Amino acid sequence: MDFIIRLARKKDMTSVHQLITELAVFEKEPDAVEVTVEDLERDGFGLHPNFTVFVAEQENTIVGMALFYDRFSTWKGKTLHLEDLIVTQSKRGLGIGKALYTELMNYAFTNNYKRIAWEVLDWNQGAIDFYESTGASVLKEWRVVHMTHDNLIEFVKK
Amino acid sequence: MDFIIRLARKKDMTSVHQLITELAVFEKEPDAVEVTVEDLERDGFGLHPNFTVFVAEQENTIVGMALFYDRFSTWKGKTLHLEDLIVTQSKRGLGIGKALYTELMNYAFTNNYKRIAWEVLDWNQGAIDFYESTGASVLKEWRVVHMTHDNLIEFVKK
Repeated sequence: MDFIIRLARKKDMTSVHQLITELAVFEKEPDAVEVTVEDLERDGFGLHPNFTVFVAEQENTIVGMALFYDRFSTWKGKTLHLEDLIVTQSKRGLGIGKALYTELMNYAFTNNYKRIAWEVLDWNQGAIDFYESTGASVLKEWRVVHMTHDNLIEFVKK
Repeated sequence: MDFIIRLARKKDMTSVHQLITELAVFEKEPDAVEVTVEDLERDGFGLHPNFTVFVAEQENTIVGMALFYDRFSTWKGKTLHLEDLIVTQSKRGLGIGKALYTELMNYAFTNNYKRIAWEVLDWNQGAIDFYESTGASVLKEWRVVHMTHDNLIEFVKK
């Protein structure tokens, strides 16, 4: 069945939020999604959008999405970060994820981004194999550090 | 000797670029810095800045900097990313790095960011110990993936 990839509109954020929630439920962290549809509408479609989204649409239904935004490397300059790429469970294996990924790479190339970065779980070998087959590299030595909001509050109150 | 922490101005970018280059030389990658002073001035001080910088200043000389920008988590919302925190070699051990770090955390708290993220080399135990002492966590399972510009060109041409 055919699908198209296109830039998301504000009114797509309900569907995008459903995909985000579906993934969180799948990862057994349903309560981790604090973002609301209204947050996505405000932060993605204001004067200075915090992100851009490509959606995959099939028969007027959104079945996948890639959410990304600018970062900046002090060595390379403007880079792109892929935050999430989600295809709804029932539509996997149809090439929709690869189409979203390819659209993002074309976008990055056309707009002269110096790098595209994202994060992967180290046990997700299927994903790693796919990324490496496209020329991307998993960095061995670098680790991600997070200061959560709760720990931030603790730190600044000291 | 006293120092102050303040937001960087456009004219500070020459000093900021020197710090970036100093670190790259220290890491034995002097040619990795493709960013120019002009890039920093344009991308950091345009209508939609790609980053913000705090600098540490001592006797009218910039001796350290922290460069950061917004990211967006589909679970948490608006988050902050610390790209680089650099103190010039001769001024280490004076608390300048911690002061820049603390300023960033206060900034994130005041502006209601839901998380602060950055990256660390897994063998840099001194840095990891410091971060953990402030309440931050090194994520064990996540890996950073990069598609370089050269590999992007290869991919999109296929």
